[in-house]
Amino acid sequence: MAENQPRGPGEHTVTAAMIVIGNEILSGRVQDKNLNFIATRLNALGIRLTEARVVIDQHDAIVKAVNETRAAYDYVFTSGGIGPTHDDITADSVAAAFCVGIDHNPEAVAILEAHYQPGMLNEARLRMARIPDGAELVENPVSHAPGFRLENVYVFAGIPSIMQAMFESIRHQLIGGAPIQSIQVTSYLPEGVIAGPLGAIQADFPDLDMGSYPFYRGQRFGTTVVFRGTDEADLNAAAEAFRDIVRQNDQEPIDGEVS
Amino acid sequence: MAENQPRGPGEHTVTAAMIVIGNEILSGRVQDKNLNFIATRLNALGIRLTEARVVIDQHDAIVKAVNETRAAYDYVFTSGGIGPTHDDITADSVAAAFCVGIDHNPEAVAILEAHYQPGMLNEARLRMARIPDGAELVENPVSHAPGFRLENVYVFAGIPSIMQAMFESIRHQLIGGAPIQSIQVTSYLPEGVIAGPLGAIQADFPDLDMGSYPFYRGQRFGTTVVFRGTDEADLNAAAEAFRDIVRQNDQEPIDGEVS
Repeated sequence: MAENQPRGPGEHTVTAAMIVIGNEILSGRVQDKNLNFIATRLNALGIRLTEARVVIDQHDAIVKAVNETRAAYDYVFTSGGIGPTHDDITADSVAAAFCVGIDHNPEAVAILEAHYQPGMLNEARLRMARIPDGAELVENPVSHAPGFRLENVYVFAGIPSIMQAMFESIRHQLIGGAPIQSIQVTSYLPEGVIAGPLGAIQADFPDLDMGSYPFYRGQRFGTTVVFRGTDEADLNAAAEAFRDIVRQNDQEPIDGEVS
Repeated sequence: MAENQPRGPGEHTVTAAMIVIGNEILSGRVQDKNLNFIATRLNALGIRLTEARVVIDQHDAIVKAVNETRAAYDYVFTSGGIGPTHDDITADSVAAAFCVGIDHNPEAVAILEAHYQPGMLNEARLRMARIPDGAELVENPVSHAPGFRLENVYVFAGIPSIMQAMFESIRHQLIGGAPIQSIQVTSYLPEGVIAGPLGAIQADFPDLDMGSYPFYRGQRFGTTVVFRGTDEADLNAAAEAFRDIVRQNDQEPIDGEVS
C-alpha cells in the first residue's frame, strides 16, 4: 500500500476522528450537524469514531488537532473552513500540518473554471483551488469547489449538504472492520436499580460494549441500555440476560428506545 | 486566590473548553445538546469557548482530555459519565488526572441518603457519591446526585436537563471578561462575491472576529456574516461598511439571519 493511501484495517479495530472547524459552533450560533452524520455513517461501515474535536478558525489550533489525530487514528475527517473568505484557513493549515506546500491545483482550477460564468471566477473564488501538494481531490457535486484527501485525512466543507455529498463521494474508499451491531433495551427502571446486574452481564461478555443511558421524560426516569459488538450470538445472549433482569423487576423490557 | 479556585480573568481573554464524555455521541445514537448550551451561556458571560472534545468512556482518553484542556484554558466543563453504572467512570478518571484520591464523600452520601427511600440506596447508587479528594460539590436540583468542581474543572451530568441545572447552580462562580457582542448581516450574495471586500474590512478592524457563513437554502446560496467583539463602536462601523458592500451589489442587507 502506497504511503499516501489511508491505512486500512489490520487485525485491529478501525478507528477515526472528526475535527469540526469553526468559531460558529463554539460561539453557540450554530448547532453542529456534521458529527452525528459522520458518526452514523462510520458505524455502518465498521469504523469506530473514537474522538471528535471542535476547534476555532485559528492556524495553530487546526495544525495541532490534525497532527494529533492523524497519528492516533486510521482516518481523520475535517469539516469547515474551505470556502473563499479570509477565515477559510483549513487547506493552508492542513498543508502546514503535513509540512507540504500549497498552491492553486490545476485540476481544481479547471473544475472552478468550468462551473463559473466567464469573469465570475475572481481571486477570492480561486482561493478554493488552493490544495496541498500531493493531495487527491474530493468531488463536490453540490457547489463544485472540491475537498481533498491527504494520506489518511479527508477535508470536507462545513455546510451539511455539501459535507454529506463529499462523504458519499469517497465512502467507497473507506475500509472498515466487522460491522458493529447493536441491540437497545429500554425500561422505566432507573439506572440505580439495573447498575449492579448490568455490571455482572458486562463481566460475562467483556468483548461487548454496554452503555447505559438514563433519560428523564414526562416526569419519569428510565434507562436505555445499548449492547454493541461484532458477535451476534453474544449480543443476543447479553441482551436476553438483561431483559430477564427487567422482568425480575416487574417490568416489561421494550426493544429499542422510547421517545 | 487559593490554588483550588478557578482562575479568574486577568488582562487576557477568558477561555474555556468543553469535554463531552460518551460513546453514545460518537456512535451517532445521540445528538449532543450540551455543547451548544454551554457555548451560548459562556458567550453571554464573556467567556470564549475555544475548544471542545468528544471522548469515549475510557479512562485514559478522559484523563488525557482533562489534563490537556485544564492546562490550556481558564475553565473546563465536562458532561457525562457520573451515574451509577459500570460505564460511569468520569469521577475516577478526573481524580486520576489530578493525581488525587477518590472515595465516598460524606456530604454527597448525606444528599443521597436524604433523597432515597430507606433501603433504596444500594451499592450502585452509592457510587454516585464517589468524589475526588478536595473537590467541591455542584448542586443537582433535578436528580440530586451531585456534580463537582476540582480547581478549574467542572464535572456535570450528561442528561441535558440535569447538566443545564448544574450549570445554573455554579454560573455565579464564573468570572468572564468584557461581554462579547455580535452583529449578523445576511444577504443572498455568495461568499465568492463578498470575500474580497470583507477581507479588506477585517484588515481595517483587526480586533474584531469576522466570520462568513455560507448557506444553501431553497436552491439559493447566501451568506451570513457575523461580526463579534467587545467594542460596540467598532462593531457598528464594520457592520455598516459591510452593508454598503451588499448595497453596491444591488441587494438589501438583512440584519440577523434568514431561516
